[in-house]
Amino acid sequence: MDDCIFCKIVANELPSTRIYEDEKVLAFMDINPVAHGHCLLIPKGHYQDIHAIPEDLLRDLIAAAKPLARAVASGMKADGLNLIQSNGRAALQLIDHFHMHFLPRWENDSLKFGSWEARQGDMKVIEEAAAAIKASLTT
Amino acid sequence: MDDCIFCKIVANELPSTRIYEDEKVLAFMDINPVAHGHCLLIPKGHYQDIHAIPEDLLRDLIAAAKPLARAVASGMKADGLNLIQSNGRAALQLIDHFHMHFLPRWENDSLKFGSWEARQGDMKVIEEAAAAIKASLTT
Repeated sequence: MDDCIFCKIVANELPSTRIYEDEKVLAFMDINPVAHGHCLLIPKGHYQDIHAIPEDLLRDLIAAAKPLARAVASGMKADGLNLIQSNGRAALQLIDHFHMHFLPRWENDSLKFGSWEARQGDMKVIEEAAAAIKASLTT
Repeated sequence: MDDCIFCKIVANELPSTRIYEDEKVLAFMDINPVAHGHCLLIPKGHYQDIHAIPEDLLRDLIAAAKPLARAVASGMKADGLNLIQSNGRAALQLIDHFHMHFLPRWENDSLKFGSWEARQGDMKVIEEAAAAIKASLTT
């Protein structure tokens, strides 16, 4: 897409620090890292999000994600690793080209998922949500 | 695995609110939701994390994730959706059975990723991280 930053990176019209690429996917460093070693894996083709990307390409991406996850964890000597894939502005997706974030993590690092607390939910509310999701799965 | 909560859920030895299942994967509601409609997708077999899970099963999981993502977003009438897959305690993985979180998001919801700020990093540090990751990819 003409005005997509990630498409320009794929086409080498914008600079990037590439880590891995093959015919279909590209991994490169995030220049606004929220963790040391923060990198991204994207399809070379332009698809906005998980809803738009074809299943076959999604399968190729996750197959590439596995060795990349190992390399990120190992290369950064990380204690852990978060993979985050965001869809929509409300979910903090800033570039409308499907991407997976790889975030190396360390014990007591500074990356906090602020309001993420394990607290038992209201089972009635949970059951209602499940019913709504199930109804949408079959329609 | 004998002492794994998710294996017990798969085996119906613990209750759960199931959304979807097939021969290889199971989706069910998180009972400690951090967002309304928070659910999980897991392989039925026990694998600790992205490093341990076989590539074929990972491909099956992501193929199941796509229609589930659509159903979660649509069923919950969400503005966005985060998929999060965590590996290791340092990355907030609490159950040692591979799982993907599906978090419906809404404009101005209360789920904050506290320290996630887009701020340009030090390119020298980024290049060094890339070199370490690339070296680990090829070894």
